[in-house]
Amino acid sequence: MTENCLFCGIVAGTIPSQQVASNERAIAFMDINPATRGHLLVVPREHATDLRESAPEDLIAATLLAQSLVGRVIERLDADGANLLSCIGADAWQSVFHTHLHVIPRYKDDPLRLPWHPTSGDADAITATAAELR
Amino acid sequence: MTENCLFCGIVAGTIPSQQVASNERAIAFMDINPATRGHLLVVPREHATDLRESAPEDLIAATLLAQSLVGRVIERLDADGANLLSCIGADAWQSVFHTHLHVIPRYKDDPLRLPWHPTSGDADAITATAAELR
Repeated sequence: MTENCLFCGIVAGTIPSQQVASNERAIAFMDINPATRGHLLVVPREHATDLRESAPEDLIAATLLAQSLVGRVIERLDADGANLLSCIGADAWQSVFHTHLHVIPRYKDDPLRLPWHPTSGDADAITATAAELR
Repeated sequence: MTENCLFCGIVAGTIPSQQVASNERAIAFMDINPATRGHLLVVPREHATDLRESAPEDLIAATLLAQSLVGRVIERLDADGANLLSCIGADAWQSVFHTHLHVIPRYKDDPLRLPWHPTSGDADAITATAAELR
C-alpha cells in the first residue's frame, strides 16, 4: 500500500467504494465519474504506478476479472458492447497513478466518442516505425 | 483459423503484416490505420470473436505481450504515454471480429481525443447499477 494513493485506500477499505467483484489479486468497483452507465474500474490490489510496472500475476488477475465483467455488463445492463481501456501516463489520460483497467459498457448512440476515424496510414512511415519497434 | 478473418490471415501469414513481436499464443503487428505513430495491434493466434470469447491463456498471452510493447513504444518512440484499448462489439468501435488489443502510443498534444471529461455521476444511479452488477 502506498500512502496517499486513492486506489490503495479503496483496496484497503479506508476509502469507500462500491465494489462489485474481486479475486485474490484484484478488485472491481464503480467509477464515480462514469463515462457511461456501469463504468467499472479494475485494479490490482498491489500498488504500481501504471500497467508497465505491475507484476505479471497482478496484471493477469486484473485482466481476467475485467474479462468476466465485460460479459457481465453486456448481459446484466443490456449494453451493446464494451471497451476495455488502460491509460499509461498523464498524456494518455491517466489521472490516478495506480494501475487500472476501465470496463466501459457501450450503448448504441451513447455519448462516448473518440474522434479516431481509421484511415490508411503512410506505408513508408509505418515500415520505419516497425523497424524501430522490432 | 477462421475463413475470411483478416487477423487469422495475418496470423497464418497469408495476409501480409508488419509483425514486431510475438509469443507462443499471440502476435503484434502494425495497425495500417494508425491513430498515432507506432499504433500496434496484439492478437491471440487462436480465433475468437472478441475478448469475451478468448480462452484465458490466449488473453493472458496477448495482455503480457501488450504490456511489454507499452514499455517499448514509450522508450523507443519517445512517446509520452500509451493507451491499451480493446473494443467489444460494433457499438464499441470493433471493426475486425477477432480479439485484439490496441497499443496506442501517446504524444503530448497528439490528435487523439475522447470527449470523456470525468464529472461526478449521480450517486443513486451508480449504487443501483452496482447492485445490478454484483
